[in-house]
Parts: sequence; structure tokens; C-alpha cells
Amino acid sequence: MNTIEPFDAVDLIRIKRDHGELSTAQIDWLVDAYTRGYVGDEQMAAMAMAILLNGMSRREIKDLTMAMIASGETMSFDGLGKPTADKHSTGGVGDKITLPLMPLVASFGVAVPQLSGRGLGHTGGTLDKLESIPGWRAELTNEQMFAQLRDVGGVICAAGAGLAPADKRLYALRDITGTVEAIPLIASSIMSKKIAEGTGALVLDVKFGSGAFMTERSRAEELARTMVALGTDAGVKTSALLTNMNVPLGLAIGNANEVRESVEVLAGGGPDDVVALTVALAREMLTLAGRPDADVEEALKDGRAMDTWRRAIAAQGGDPDAPLPVARETHVVTADRDGILIEQQALPFGIAAWRLGAGRARKEDPVQHAAGIDLHAKPGDTVRAGQPLFTLSADEPERFARALEVLEGAYRIGDPSEPIEDGGPLIAARID
Amino acid sequence: MNTIEPFDAVDLIRIKRDHGELSTAQIDWLVDAYTRGYVGDEQMAAMAMAILLNGMSRREIKDLTMAMIASGETMSFDGLGKPTADKHSTGGVGDKITLPLMPLVASFGVAVPQLSGRGLGHTGGTLDKLESIPGWRAELTNEQMFAQLRDVGGVICAAGAGLAPADKRLYALRDITGTVEAIPLIASSIMSKKIAEGTGALVLDVKFGSGAFMTERSRAEELARTMVALGTDAGVKTSALLTNMNVPLGLAIGNANEVRESVEVLAGGGPDDVVALTVALAREMLTLAGRPDADVEEALKDGRAMDTWRRAIAAQGGDPDAPLPVARETHVVTADRDGILIEQQALPFGIAAWRLGAGRARKEDPVQHAAGIDLHAKPGDTVRAGQPLFTLSADEPERFARALEVLEGAYRIGDPSEPIEDGGPLIAARID
Repeated sequence: MNTIEPFDAVDLIRIKRDHGELSTAQIDWLVDAYTRGYVGDEQMAAMAMAILLNGMSRREIKDLTMAMIASGETMSFDGLGKPTADKHSTGGVGDKITLPLMPLVASFGVAVPQLSGRGLGHTGGTLDKLESIPGWRAELTNEQMFAQLRDVGGVICAAGAGLAPADKRLYALRDITGTVEAIPLIASSIMSKKIAEGTGALVLDVKFGSGAFMTERSRAEELARTMVALGTDAGVKTSALLTNMNVPLGLAIGNANEVRESVEVLAGGGPDDVVALTVALAREMLTLAGRPDADVEEALKDGRAMDTWRRAIAAQGGDPDAPLPVARETHVVTADRDGILIEQQALPFGIAAWRLGAGRARKEDPVQHAAGIDLHAKPGDTVRAGQPLFTLSADEPERFARALEVLEGAYRIGDPSEPIEDGGPLIAARID
Repeated sequence: MNTIEPFDAVDLIRIKRDHGELSTAQIDWLVDAYTRGYVGDEQMAAMAMAILLNGMSRREIKDLTMAMIASGETMSFDGLGKPTADKHSTGGVGDKITLPLMPLVASFGVAVPQLSGRGLGHTGGTLDKLESIPGWRAELTNEQMFAQLRDVGGVICAAGAGLAPADKRLYALRDITGTVEAIPLIASSIMSKKIAEGTGALVLDVKFGSGAFMTERSRAEELARTMVALGTDAGVKTSALLTNMNVPLGLAIGNANEVRESVEVLAGGGPDDVVALTVALAREMLTLAGRPDADVEEALKDGRAMDTWRRAIAAQGGDPDAPLPVARETHVVTADRDGILIEQQALPFGIAAWRLGAGRARKEDPVQHAAGIDLHAKPGDTVRAGQPLFTLSADEPERFARALEVLEGAYRIGDPSEPIEDGGPLIAARID
């Protein structure tokens, strides 16, 4: 290298390794030099492990987030002339909340720029679910996205590659080096993209429990507090709900069936837990965006949210009235006794849906839009022997065996005297 | 990859990250997969940082060492029909002990296969020093090395690339990822090469103090104990001396001047500290090799060690009688007052010699054989104002300024009432 570099990667790794604190200038340089390729993947991997094991101060996490934002383009919605609010979920089984939430909030005149991703592993991706709607396309230009925010009020589309490219590279590196779980890195990864996107308000749905990325509630809470602080420091009105992901959310796990359930919610119906979380998150977003009195339940009942949904789907080439794909094969599992459904573990149901074809193992794999699981009972429900408990759907019948294998012991029918093992209330805490 | 791998690198990194212990099979696979390139540098860097921060058990360190040995060829000196003994020093300023030690031990009929390296940074390399002898060559084939061990009894030559290649790759990676200082990795790196080399006995000179790789005595002692345990577990008779490297060893720091000082020791003279350490290490090696009664001091006085030295140098093409190179420029630093030399810090003198051209900054740089420092007084000596304290030698006079800069405050003349700041006795402890 002929250019004079102000720092040396090894020195910075040693500082973090030895429990020291990196300066703002050091973090700026590190992220920039990593983006330029001057700091190598092997050096960043050692740094990521040191961060995972030794932590980062709030100031360091903020600097890291800001440096990742500075590695790419930023957007601004100032020209829209209305407040903006976004939501991010750390991901869970059956988590389709973005689908009813976006039109619900947008129906109150608050713009919702929901830049989303595809799924990897047992938690599905919002774009994968929406792509089960015939004709719908995830990729929009910035101009198309702005036009839709102006005309429809909300958009769910693929995040462009231009936002926080350093994060993109670092995320891929963390995935193969056992450093995904570092809270400073998770927080800065999520928040760099959301802050670069330019939203005015942000609500975080941070999940804990067997089906969540963070199983321990205390770790989820730490992540939530870190991200709320980061957003606030960056001038984004930010709050978080800490939510329980020990049980699948709603009755549908998959893609097309989750769209179907979302449309039920927009039609004023749908499972209680999906409605409750949609309403709670909508209230948070609208409150942060200056509309604390918005009657969100009414907007679900009177069709306003549904109307926005239909316009948003149509604006992206989708036909909101087209029939959703249906799987070629189904397999019904019934109750083997009378009793109460005591337990229904999120993780195995997520993995089973994934094995049925609803998710992908590698980035380049396609998903099968009609594959998934429909639950017919939830923990606490009374069931009778022979009654259907859930239905597996797949395009290839040979997938059922591996899905059923992981579901062994994942649910349990017990007696009315037993406590329901659902991990507690759906919304455990609010953090701001 | 089409082959089925028994483990996944990310799983193994997570085990170590989460304070777990890797199994023998896991370590074997990791080193083999890293050698094959299936496990990448970024994954090994994360693992190295996790090892540095979370440590390894004695069993894991042994497995790591054995796996690195298995990554390459091993040698055996069984065919020589005599015992073998080797020495390894963790490196220090003015550490030329290998030069008088090899012929001294070999003169008693114990074969000394001293596979050595070149220097990087402020501690010089044994091969760099010897290469200041006109005609001497470091590179020998295995056949030439064996022939010299048989005919002369001792050899100092370059370690072939075939020994522990996994260590070679890992060492280069550690160098750029801030993971050099991990005791399990240092110990397995040193010991894998020595065990693969096939020596029957091994004495370790583990240095602590300002001029050593490990400044803290406790860390040096931990490293020494780890390596002695490793050698013993592998069937090599191993012991260690814990030695003080707060003050340069001897009066010469450089290359040609260190050879000159070594020849003085072999002629029965030389500085007390160099003689004392040479004698102590020779006794250790000879004791481990079954010759506890060998009169090593006599062999220095009566010319036996010198005779072996001359034959070894000649066997490798060197002329033991040829004049050694002399620098084009010298600069003498004198005492500015009468008094006692209280302090003479090893690290700045090592860095100064390096800046004069005696060492290299990058692997591909040449060294200047005549560059270095000759000390004219040692801590405890009485000095008079105007008396030479040390002489700097370099081929380019512009090097003096940067050498003198680092020597600012590196030595101090005080009053007879002041305690000498030399960090205590040269040989602090023996470990076996």
C-alpha cells in the first residue's frame, strides 16, 4: 500500500482484545478500511470475536453504527411532507405482522417504508411471503418506492444494496465465523440499515424464547435497550416491544398461508395473538409518529387498512384478488387423546415448515410458496381425540417424514389441571 | 464441497467461544481442514481469538500440537546412534546463545540438530547472525543435515518447510490478527516444530522482561510450564529455564558482532552473562541427554567446543577464519557524568539495533550484517564522564538519528547508593 493509513488493524484488534475502548476515529477507519478491502476478513473476524467476548461501550456501538451508515448511501423522506414510521422484528415463527401492520399504519397518513429481506433458516422472510401473491414484485427503484409512499402511503420492498454495504459484508463474515450473536454487532447491523433508510420513527419487535434468535429474555432485553439507545442517539424516535416467541404466532406458518392470515386480520378477523401484536405495534408506531389517538382497531374493522393493503399490492404488480397457491399434498395430524393443548413449541414448528419447503437452507435456494403448516389449535385450547391439531402442506409428499420427525415431542396434550407452557404473555415489556 | 465433513467450523468456533472444550477428533479435523483450505483464514482467526480469550486445556493444547505435527513430515535421529538435544529460546536482545551452545554440547557427543529461523522485529534471528560469516549457508537438505550431525555432531540450519505446515500458516495468520500472544498457540507452535524435528531432549529458554516477547514473568512461567508439559506428554525429555531479558544479553547486539562475541566465548572468554547462560543451558541439555557429569566449562577452556564450531561452520561452506564484515559508519555515545550505570533497557536497545539495519521490518527485507550496537558498559559498572558507553554501527549514517531517538531514556547513570535496575538475576527459575 502506498497510502499512509492512520491506524493499524492489529493495534485496534489488540485494544479490543485487551478490554480497551476504540476511539471514534479508530472505528471510522476500521469500517472504511474494511469496506475498501485494506482490512481483511481474517482481521475483521478476530475483531468480531473480540467484540463478542469483550463487548463494546454505548459510544463504540454508536460509532460503529454511524461508520456503517457512512459506508453507503442514505435516504431521506423529508420530501414526502408526512411523518414516517418503520418496524423491525428480530424474527420468529409465523411472524407475518409486517403484512397487516404496514397498511394499518399507512391508513392514518403516516408513511411506512418497510425495507425487508428474504428468510434464511427457520424464520421466514417478509418478501418470501408476499411473493406468493401472483404478480407481486419486491424490487423497486428508489423513485418507485417514493412514488408509492406518496400515493399509497406504505411500501414493503427489498432493501437496496446501497444501504450500509459494510454491514452486508460484515454480516456474511459473522455468519461463517461464529460471531452472529454479539449484541453490539447485531444492534449496529439492524440499526445502521434503519437509520440509513431515513425513517423518522422506529418500533422494534425484539423476540425471546425457543423460536427466537435470542432464546433468553435477558439477552433480548439487552439487545432492545442497546438498539433503542442507538436509534435515540441518531435522532430516530425509537421504542421496542419485548415479545414472547415460545409459541408460533397465529395459526399459519409458511408463505401463502401467512398472507391469507394477514388478509383475515385486515378484514377484521384473524387469530387473537396476531391481531393483538399488530395493534400494539401500530399504536407504538403511530404514537412515535405523532398520532397517539389513532383508533387502529377501528381501521381494521372499517376496511381502511384493507383498502391500503390492496392498493399497495396492486402498485407492486400484485393482484390482491388472485387465488394464492395451494400445496399439492397435505398431511393432517390429529389429537391422540382428549385434553388441553399444553405446549406448542415455536422452534420445531418453524423447522418443520422450513423442511416442508417454506424456507431456504442456502441464499440461492427458492422457497415453495404453498408449503407450510396450518395450526388448528393453540395452547390452552380444549381438544378431543381424533380432532385435527395441524395440517402440513408440501409440494412433495416425501418431505412429510422429516417434518414430522422434528415435531416429535414439540406439542403435548395434557389435563385441565396442568399449567399452559406458553412462556407467559405475548407482550412482555415495552422499552423506550 | 462434495465430501462429507464430520464437523462444521462454525460449531467448533462456538464451542470455544462459549468456554467449552474441543474433542481430539474436533481438533484433528480443524487443523486438517485448515491445511486443506476447507476451513478459511477468517474462521481460524475467530477461533484463534476465542482461544486467546478463553484458553485451552492441557489436553486440547496437546491435541493441537499433535495435529500440527501430523499436518507435515516428521524426522527421526534414531539412525545416528547417539542422543540428541535441542534448545529453543523465545527470543531476546543480544541472544546469540545458540552459537556457542551448539558446538559446546556437540563436543560431548550429544547431537544438536538446531533448526532455526530468521528474525522479524527487534529480536534477531540465529540464521541472520551466522550469515554474516562469509560463505556460510543456512539451507541444507535433510541428507546434508544428517551427515553433519554424524560427522561434526551439531548443525544450525534453516528449518525445512515440511515440518508442521499448519503451524506456518497459522503463525502468519496470528501475526496479522492480534492473536500472537495466546499461550496455547505459542506453545503448540514452538513445540509442534521441535517434536516433529525428532529431538530426544529439549531445553527451553523462556525469557521475560522488557526485551522479551512476554514481558510479565508470570506469563513466561505459564508458557514454560505449558511447553514442558507438552514435550513430556510427547515423549521428549523437556525442561525450561526462565531467564531475565530486561537487560541486553552480552555486549553485542546485531549480527556479525554477535558472532564475534560467540567466538570469544568459545575461546574461553566473553561476557559473564553470555558464558553463564551458555553453560547453564548446556548443562540442562547434557543432563537430559544422559551426560549430567560433562564438564562444560572445561570444554570452553580447552578448545574442544571451538574445534566443533570451526568444523560446523566449514561444513556449511563458511570460513571460520575470514574477517567478519565491519560497518561503514560508527557513532559513539559517551557518559555525561561519573557514576554507576544503573539501567540499560533491553527493548530500546533491541529496537535501536533493528533501526540501524540489523533486523528486518518485513519478511522479504535483507539484514545488514555489520549493523548493530556494541555496549562498553553493563548495569553495575562504574563509568566516568566522557567514557564511551556504546557504539552504534550502520552502513548508512542517516540511520543513527532514529536509533538514538529510541535510546533516549533507555539507560541511566546514577549514584553508587542507587539499586541497579536489571530486573534481578539472569536465571530466575528452572522448570521441569
